[in-house]
Amino acid sequence: MNYRMVLYIIGQMMKVEGLLMFMPLIIAIMYNESVLPFVIPIALLLGVGLSLTVRPPKNKVLRSKDGFACVGLCWVVLALFGALPFVISGSTATFTDALFESVSGFTTTGASVIADVEVLDKGILFWRSLTHWVGGMGVLVFVLAVLPRSDAKSGRLMHLMRAEVPGPTVGKIAPKISRTARVMYAIYVVLTIIEVVFLLFGGMSFFDALIHSFGTAGTGGFSIKNASIGAYNSAYIEYVIGAFMLLFGINFNLFYLILIGHFLRAIKSEELWSYFIIITVAVTTITFNIMPLYQGGEESFRMAFFQVASIISTTGYSTTDFGSWPMLSQAILVILMFFGGCAGSTAGGMKIGRVILLVKNAAREIRYILHPRTVVSVKIDGKAVDNETIRGSTSYLIVYLCIFVLSIIGIIALNGCDLVTGFTSVASCLNNIGPGLAEVGPMSNFGNLSGLSKWILSFNMLAGRLELFPILMLFSRSTWKK
Amino acid sequence: MNYRMVLYIIGQMMKVEGLLMFMPLIIAIMYNESVLPFVIPIALLLGVGLSLTVRPPKNKVLRSKDGFACVGLCWVVLALFGALPFVISGSTATFTDALFESVSGFTTTGASVIADVEVLDKGILFWRSLTHWVGGMGVLVFVLAVLPRSDAKSGRLMHLMRAEVPGPTVGKIAPKISRTARVMYAIYVVLTIIEVVFLLFGGMSFFDALIHSFGTAGTGGFSIKNASIGAYNSAYIEYVIGAFMLLFGINFNLFYLILIGHFLRAIKSEELWSYFIIITVAVTTITFNIMPLYQGGEESFRMAFFQVASIISTTGYSTTDFGSWPMLSQAILVILMFFGGCAGSTAGGMKIGRVILLVKNAAREIRYILHPRTVVSVKIDGKAVDNETIRGSTSYLIVYLCIFVLSIIGIIALNGCDLVTGFTSVASCLNNIGPGLAEVGPMSNFGNLSGLSKWILSFNMLAGRLELFPILMLFSRSTWKK
Repeated sequence: MNYRMVLYIIGQMMKVEGLLMFMPLIIAIMYNESVLPFVIPIALLLGVGLSLTVRPPKNKVLRSKDGFACVGLCWVVLALFGALPFVISGSTATFTDALFESVSGFTTTGASVIADVEVLDKGILFWRSLTHWVGGMGVLVFVLAVLPRSDAKSGRLMHLMRAEVPGPTVGKIAPKISRTARVMYAIYVVLTIIEVVFLLFGGMSFFDALIHSFGTAGTGGFSIKNASIGAYNSAYIEYVIGAFMLLFGINFNLFYLILIGHFLRAIKSEELWSYFIIITVAVTTITFNIMPLYQGGEESFRMAFFQVASIISTTGYSTTDFGSWPMLSQAILVILMFFGGCAGSTAGGMKIGRVILLVKNAAREIRYILHPRTVVSVKIDGKAVDNETIRGSTSYLIVYLCIFVLSIIGIIALNGCDLVTGFTSVASCLNNIGPGLAEVGPMSNFGNLSGLSKWILSFNMLAGRLELFPILMLFSRSTWKK
Repeated sequence: MNYRMVLYIIGQMMKVEGLLMFMPLIIAIMYNESVLPFVIPIALLLGVGLSLTVRPPKNKVLRSKDGFACVGLCWVVLALFGALPFVISGSTATFTDALFESVSGFTTTGASVIADVEVLDKGILFWRSLTHWVGGMGVLVFVLAVLPRSDAKSGRLMHLMRAEVPGPTVGKIAPKISRTARVMYAIYVVLTIIEVVFLLFGGMSFFDALIHSFGTAGTGGFSIKNASIGAYNSAYIEYVIGAFMLLFGINFNLFYLILIGHFLRAIKSEELWSYFIIITVAVTTITFNIMPLYQGGEESFRMAFFQVASIISTTGYSTTDFGSWPMLSQAILVILMFFGGCAGSTAGGMKIGRVILLVKNAAREIRYILHPRTVVSVKIDGKAVDNETIRGSTSYLIVYLCIFVLSIIGIIALNGCDLVTGFTSVASCLNNIGPGLAEVGPMSNFGNLSGLSKWILSFNMLAGRLELFPILMLFSRSTWKK
């Protein structure tokens, strides 16, 4: 590993995190709250960050695997420092809880250990939701966007982006990596602002609008109300947030294509179509299934639409306790947890693109058995997918299942909870959603789980957000060789 | 498809099924029960079977895919006629129920729709358990063993065997297919007889010993007691059946290797070792976990040993209601459901060999990302596995998961049952185990599910027993082309 370069990147990342913390600090000053929870971490982050980046390393080359490990390491550091405000302010009882909350924020999971969020300081609430926004598009993508041009050019830093942006393939928008990063962040910022404006029209306060736009944009799900979006009791707000959750689950490359006028190419995307077909089927089924529980079709549709949007985009906001819905609706939501949004979006889960790839590959195998002599290739958007990508997707699935099964056993063994709690808590964290069912349902939280299980779930959230390999690599000895 | 040859093989199979039904017929006569439930199907089977096999077809070549489809077709016919005794005797209320019971028998699942089995006629009970025994080793393997030498030699019938014997690869014991089939059946018969003798020593009646040996040998799980093996209340019987369930979950090729003196080669098998390690870990964990529920260590160990053996071998016998065990133990049993026994045994599930292959392949992929330039091959028993086999295993997993997810949605939608019932009923049927948890737990049955869901589960059982492809192929138009 090129230690000097990795430390340099970590240093850059720490400076960014330190600067970001000035935002909640300002909020805290505005509301006359304690500033210590932010001043101490800022001092630490800027101090260490600056000292690590005083002198750029001469050798800036990062090999593919170093890039992956570097991203994994950055996120661990990010989450550790991000936990400090929660500890110092006393918002969480233990460091484990603070770390869980921080990991949950940055990974845009939105699972919380805090039972009553309404009593927290505004500054803390702001930081909590800001982590969603930063984690959604990726902190290293941000670093790449602001890195000096010489670094970005010479360092072959594409690996960093590949490791941090979700999905089986990363489309380069621009030939230069720093420009790609800047375009993606620009789209991200603009969409977030549009959502804020929409929410202001719905009568939300500016603070609330900002918080919930952060949570939607990053597909995170932290709210500042105990009843989540349900607390606003406004059909308008529910439709707006529902629609934006779906938007942020779409591949950002498509927005870019639309921006540069390639509208037709964008809407031809197979992944996009599959995404909307899955949503339509799920919303229709659930609407009819939950009809008896609500007053009329509009309310059933709104509930179904919001919850499906929330789960498939892996946001995790809720407007009702879907744990009390009929079993069919619950089962559909549990299955949507695994699908997730599109590749290249801020959503978690397996990603629709990967699911399509796996299903098409399975269909090809069946065809292969039927006609052994014909060579069939897997095509996405009319183009043949290379075997390397297919191979990557299948091994992804297997590693994913291994982590999934071992984590469920761990959670059940440590907490003695029921199978549904064990299954959905892991499914929810590994797919970066937020709420599960039963003891970790939408009207409950993760606070009652044992300490060790919070570490397991934190590992799950990080592994899910970074798509397994960057985190797994930290456990390999060969990663740490000079 | 070579229709003439496929019909010829189906005819042979029907003759075999007709002859097998003479056994329950004799039992029925001995116990003065109605003979109609057997006489009618025997007449039909022999009549149609003989007319289909009067003249062997000239072109005996079956291509690979025809072989697969032929096996799928044979099993559907087998199950349809096998259901007749249940309908005619009135043991089940509807034909759907009878078919479910028959499919469950032949696929060695052991899931039952009959609430009270103790009131059934002896002849029916015998037939019900005999289907386990026949289905375990495979009805076509039996046909191959008794087929005229000229057919077996000229027809390239290896495909049939490959489609019916479980596991990612089929080891040819003997160069000739008919000899391989005969050796496998010989081992099977001898092991079954040994178990009968052991059970007789434990004070079981000859009829009961035979029934439970059939159920164990095929890893089926139908009992003639409502409380399954628990009804005998004998530690000796529980240990004997537990041990034999584990034996029948071992690859039959290994028994053959031991028979011909290659003892060392047999016990070096990686799959065998993994099988025993998984069993040891599971039994140890569960023993300690359930200790508070039982009187002393021996009873806990016995319960854990029996239940683990029953689930991993996919038999499904029970000695206690493990639905009331602590959640950790239940979770371990649910996970074991998916592992299943060894390839080339009578057990269902994914097969240990396939799980090893998938895990090793995942490990290879991680290594590949770490060191992109080194070529690593997946090795089993020291030999490199070809990519074709690995590819087959991964696509197997994906098709398996697709069927699994769609079936769960179907079952929950049709019955409105809870998630655990939906999940474990499909897991149990697709892996050919028998009992699930909650509403389909060991002390309950599948009778209360809706008619359509019984068809879905029957499809699952057949797909699981034949390892997906032979059954899926029946739904492809190209299979039916001349």
